Amino acid sequence: MKEVTIIRRERFCSAHKLWNPNWDAKKNEETFGGCSNPNWHGHNYELIVKVAGEIEPETGFVMNLKTLSKILKYKVIDKLDHKNLNLDVDFLKDKRTTTEVVAVAIWEEIEEEIKIKGGKLISVRVNETENNSVEYFGEK
Amino acid sequence: MKEVTIIRRERFCSAHKLWNPNWDAKKNEETFGGCSNPNWHGHNYELIVKVAGEIEPETGFVMNLKTLSKILKYKVIDKLDHKNLNLDVDFLKDKRTTTEVVAVAIWEEIEEEIKIKGGKLISVRVNETENNSVEYFGEK
Amino acid sequence: MKEVTIIRRERFCSAHKLWNPNWDAKKNEETFGGCSNPNWHGHNYELIVKVAGEIEPETGFVMNLKTLSKILKYKVIDKLDHKNLNLDVDFLKDKRTTTEVVAVAIWEEIEEEIKIKGGKLISVRVNETENNSVEYFGEK
Amino acid sequence: MKEVTIIRRERFCSAHKLWNPNWDAKKNEETFGGCSNPNWHGHNYELIVKVAGEIEPETGFVMNLKTLSKILKYKVIDKLDHKNLNLDVDFLKDKRTTTEVVAVAIWEEIEEEIKIKGGKLISVRVNETENNSVEYFGEK
Amino acid sequence: MKEVTIIRRERFCSAHKLWNPNWDAKKNEETFGGCSNPNWHGHNYELIVKVAGEIEPETGFVMNLKTLSKILKYKVIDKLDHKNLNLDVDFLKDKRTTTEVVAVAIWEEIEEEIKIKGGKLISVRVNETENNSVEYFGEK
Amino acid sequence: MKEVTIIRRERFCSAHKLWNPNWDAKKNEETFGGCSNPNWHGHNYELIVKVAGEIEPETGFVMNLKTLSKILKYKVIDKLDHKNLNLDVDFLKDKRTTTEVVAVAIWEEIEEEIKIKGGKLISVRVNETENNSVEYFGEK
Repeated sequence: MKEVTIIRRERFCSAHKLWNPNWDAKKNEETFGGCSNPNWHGHNYELIVKVAGEIEPETGFVMNLKTLSKILKYKVIDKLDHKNLNLDVDFLKDKRTTTEVVAVAIWEEIEEEIKIKGGKLISVRVNETENNSVEYFGEK
Repeated sequence: MKEVTIIRRERFCSAHKLWNPNWDAKKNEETFGGCSNPNWHGHNYELIVKVAGEIEPETGFVMNLKTLSKILKYKVIDKLDHKNLNLDVDFLKDKRTTTEVVAVAIWEEIEEEIKIKGGKLISVRVNETENNSVEYFGEK
Repeated sequence: MKEVTIIRRERFCSAHKLWNPNWDAKKNEETFGGCSNPNWHGHNYELIVKVAGEIEPETGFVMNLKTLSKILKYKVIDKLDHKNLNLDVDFLKDKRTTTEVVAVAIWEEIEEEIKIKGGKLISVRVNETENNSVEYFGEK
Repeated sequence: MKEVTIIRRERFCSAHKLWNPNWDAKKNEETFGGCSNPNWHGHNYELIVKVAGEIEPETGFVMNLKTLSKILKYKVIDKLDHKNLNLDVDFLKDKRTTTEVVAVAIWEEIEEEIKIKGGKLISVRVNETENNSVEYFGEK
Repeated sequence: MKEVTIIRRERFCSAHKLWNPNWDAKKNEETFGGCSNPNWHGHNYELIVKVAGEIEPETGFVMNLKTLSKILKYKVIDKLDHKNLNLDVDFLKDKRTTTEVVAVAIWEEIEEEIKIKGGKLISVRVNETENNSVEYFGEK
Repeated sequence: MKEVTIIRRERFCSAHKLWNPNWDAKKNEETFGGCSNPNWHGHNYELIVKVAGEIEPETGFVMNLKTLSKILKYKVIDKLDHKNLNLDVDFLKDKRTTTEVVAVAIWEEIEEEIKIKGGKLISVRVNETENNSVEYFGEK
């Protein structure tokens, strides 16, 4: 079987902070450092999604990358871009907004929709800065 | 066993269009959008090839990256760079020139040669734009 | 006077060839090398435009970057992206499509419109590959 | 005279919003779009500072880039990184936090200190995203 | 199980040469080309380390990226940055300093420490130039 | 007059150290820090050269970028790439090998040759790392 992986990059610019509401400010700062700033900070996040499937002979596509981009746009980017990850995003409600948690949450938002369109979600990568990233491959 | 993967990036600048000759112009445009422009468009493609093997103790190499680069050059880059993927490339004859198809075709061009030189081809990645890429890991 | 420069990057993917119709094929190939391939080749071009002006106190903007982006989109990107620079672009008709010529032609397309919107066009830069670029600052 | 320009890149991750307190929410949103989100958004900003001077023969330096980096760190990065540009930064108090305004404000923070250390500030560039940037060269 | 991978990039600037002391200068040059220059050359290396684990619910972290960064700093970067890989690095003593060998040696330096901190080392990638890289996934 | 600037990027990988032979080791280390490591360190340098001129109507070129690239190759890259800047380069003999000094020295090596080929050298930029660069515009 010739399974091929297509890869799409999207971007979103968001505010967030790392904060555990069960802890006092001191413990939050000790654990999360500058990331716990009460007035928020933010990032230009990159989202990189890999989807695998066989090539459809008529089109030469695994899935039209415009279809994948649209799924990512209405399921993720429209909800995260120019938003506050802690306050504005339904699927991050009451969660730590670490890159780890964000990557897993994005996987859960898009997996079903990609399956419906005929693809198999392989991985969700979120780059928070040029040095810090997270990748998630789904439950094992 | 200490298997190590070496990674080489090459580049090629090519024209192409997405076009299914069994369809009329309207259906081609509906399916492929701007990519079906009859007068072609083009890209700065990046080719990223991964090859694995054990380290040869005398040299410290899995395979001299210059050897890998030469294989890629005469098997792929010389044939694709400053060419039209639909018209000028023997191994893409009568194929859709989607990034998926190009990545698989490159795999098939280089796999044997890399094996002869003692390496195991792991993956072929083709970046079409900074947002759209494809990766192929061979038949499973 | 506090003049500030805003900078916007756009991208377009086009086919082209370098060809002087007054020369035979041999001279074209000697001069332009692989860039003269009759069947075209192509690039992911980057367009980087600088516009200067004073900061408008109510908005903090020299010019809303969305306004600048829109000008670039309908004056340049819509005409060049997924097109053939030699065949499809009214303002490149009968011109050599070197990066130099493309950069000057883009300047002439957008200068007036940017002036109308209250900005002063400073430079047009076109990156053809990661190694080759051109910058134009207008007539002196 | 052999004047040479040294260039230092620093980075800061901040939250902000574009908001004119003299306007109602509707006008703010019409003007600033998603950038006016009341709950903030954020960016990985890049700061690129150019400083000119003659080469000091004993060291071969215009100015030790570590000296320049330290100035940028305590005058700018420590105040902006992991902060809210609208709420946490003394020198942006009551200002629009557009990239234009931020670049000019950074210039005014560092110009004197760089002069004291023997350099001449040439420009302050702030990249807000990979597509949107601002450059400031001082008052003319 | 929801295993998540965190990714950290570090950088080091080092001199080295490729040289087999059992060979004469001619054979070294034939094998290693310019990399065998007796007076050394050097690179801006990038080190990219992937570590997997489950998300700790209180923090939302697999491992605090600052912890990972500190391990990399005192185990690797402090020993390699602004050093000669052939002469100054205890754990590269008497080894070929190819990117392959460097990547494996870094794996062996950090694997235990990352385990102690609760993570599982997945891969060590070393980028020597923008075109040449190596990735190591441990013994199989 | 329509003067256009062409820009070419080249790369070289070199070893060097910052060292003033009139100073003892202690003063060298205090001044230059890790850059004074006696056993050298190294970088992937980027060289970015800007050349201006009018567009030649027959070709659409200011100067064929291949001509510029060749000048840079035999005047600079062949002498610096995979070399030791302090020991192997005639035109850096007895100089501090700071990025400032290297940029000025490269200007002096190439200015005349570019003039002979009909171009006007505008600037020489040398990137030592992703954060540290130098630009030189010639004597004023």
